[in-house]
Amino acid sequence: MKYRLYYWPEIQGRGEFVRLALEYAGADYVDVMRRGGDFSFPKKHPPFAPPYLVAGKRIISQSANILLYLGPRLRLAPKDEAGRLWAHQLQLTIADWLTEVHDTHHPVGSGLYYEEQKKEARRRAADFLATRLPKYLDYFEGVLEASAKGYLLGRTLAYPDLSLFQMVTGLRYAFPGAMAGLERRHPRVSSLQVNVAAHSRLRAYLASKRRISFNQLGIFRAYPELDVLRNNLKKT
Amino acid sequence: MKYRLYYWPEIQGRGEFVRLALEYAGADYVDVMRRGGDFSFPKKHPPFAPPYLVAGKRIISQSANILLYLGPRLRLAPKDEAGRLWAHQLQLTIADWLTEVHDTHHPVGSGLYYEEQKKEARRRAADFLATRLPKYLDYFEGVLEASAKGYLLGRTLAYPDLSLFQMVTGLRYAFPGAMAGLERRHPRVSSLQVNVAAHSRLRAYLASKRRISFNQLGIFRAYPELDVLRNNLKKT
Repeated sequence: MKYRLYYWPEIQGRGEFVRLALEYAGADYVDVMRRGGDFSFPKKHPPFAPPYLVAGKRIISQSANILLYLGPRLRLAPKDEAGRLWAHQLQLTIADWLTEVHDTHHPVGSGLYYEEQKKEARRRAADFLATRLPKYLDYFEGVLEASAKGYLLGRTLAYPDLSLFQMVTGLRYAFPGAMAGLERRHPRVSSLQVNVAAHSRLRAYLASKRRISFNQLGIFRAYPELDVLRNNLKKT
Repeated sequence: MKYRLYYWPEIQGRGEFVRLALEYAGADYVDVMRRGGDFSFPKKHPPFAPPYLVAGKRIISQSANILLYLGPRLRLAPKDEAGRLWAHQLQLTIADWLTEVHDTHHPVGSGLYYEEQKKEARRRAADFLATRLPKYLDYFEGVLEASAKGYLLGRTLAYPDLSLFQMVTGLRYAFPGAMAGLERRHPRVSSLQVNVAAHSRLRAYLASKRRISFNQLGIFRAYPELDVLRNNLKKT
């Protein structure tokens, strides 16, 4: 099956969670917009927003839903229903987490510029780093501890592991100060990021031009004024 | 199968989307916390947050994931994979929408009181009502128009219809002024709410004590100062 992925060509964004699965699995796919293609929203099963995946006659959107579909096909999810629901549950929690990361720099409105909501962003980011980020990291550290086999679902890498890799990588870019301290208290999450990055196909992807760099249009953005824990550390 | 639902007993919240499916289908279930029970977070497949559903040995969390599981079992989703993914895609879009509703009164942090973020809430709610709410309503109006058979997926009610009913009902409570104007431009969405409410089992549920009232602890809250379109209308 040849897959066609439609997503904004200049950012990692939500599409990156799908790209990572396709790349890790060595799937046959085209990143349509990066090849100069355009969105063509179908009348049947229209997406609310990108990303969406075209697979034969199917069109599927919502990144977690795309991964639900791709998981078993790319051997990145268990085959039994209980395992697939558990993988999906983890993915949906990551999706919630990602929205909260986005809202650190866009707490008022996604259609406004960051500069129009800097004041609100400082408060939201401070709350995120103090209360929400530790809660998410604690949760995934606990899941890895319970699995005790290196990956979230056990001995075998599944698509939520790739997504957790992406979260940690992005958070290091956006909040280097806060993450330096937090990762010490979440060694399993930290190790997972390193282990996933070392897989040969993923390493090749990350070093290629297909991997878009983090930038200030994406979800993970490096605004030092929002990395409040680091600012606090500097003062002492 | 007897289901056990675990969710906060004093609010509709995210649990209500599951309750509506169970009630509409006439399923055998216990709303555990409302019967005085307590959360018991399992070590295997732990939820990040309520709601979660216990079904035999299974435990499933994330409201959209619970509905993904329940859908075919309660005859509230198609049986084929394409239909199930489409229903789930709609549900995930509703979940995103719901988060945006929540953030109108909690744009800075979910752990803070509304009173600590009233100023930010005014800006976020104004943006939500002006740009995001119309976008979501346009989308679902378009899906209903394309289906042309009264329900989102066609002739038969599916669980996303119950969730869309809940969104419209909640939005009318939270933003009566804004919704009065918007519903006129989204007649299919507006009718769907009325039609779903008229189903006999749902009508019985809504009139019962099992249906928790909207209140100022939930996701949909009636803060007149945030219903900005109404305020604007009053001035003219």
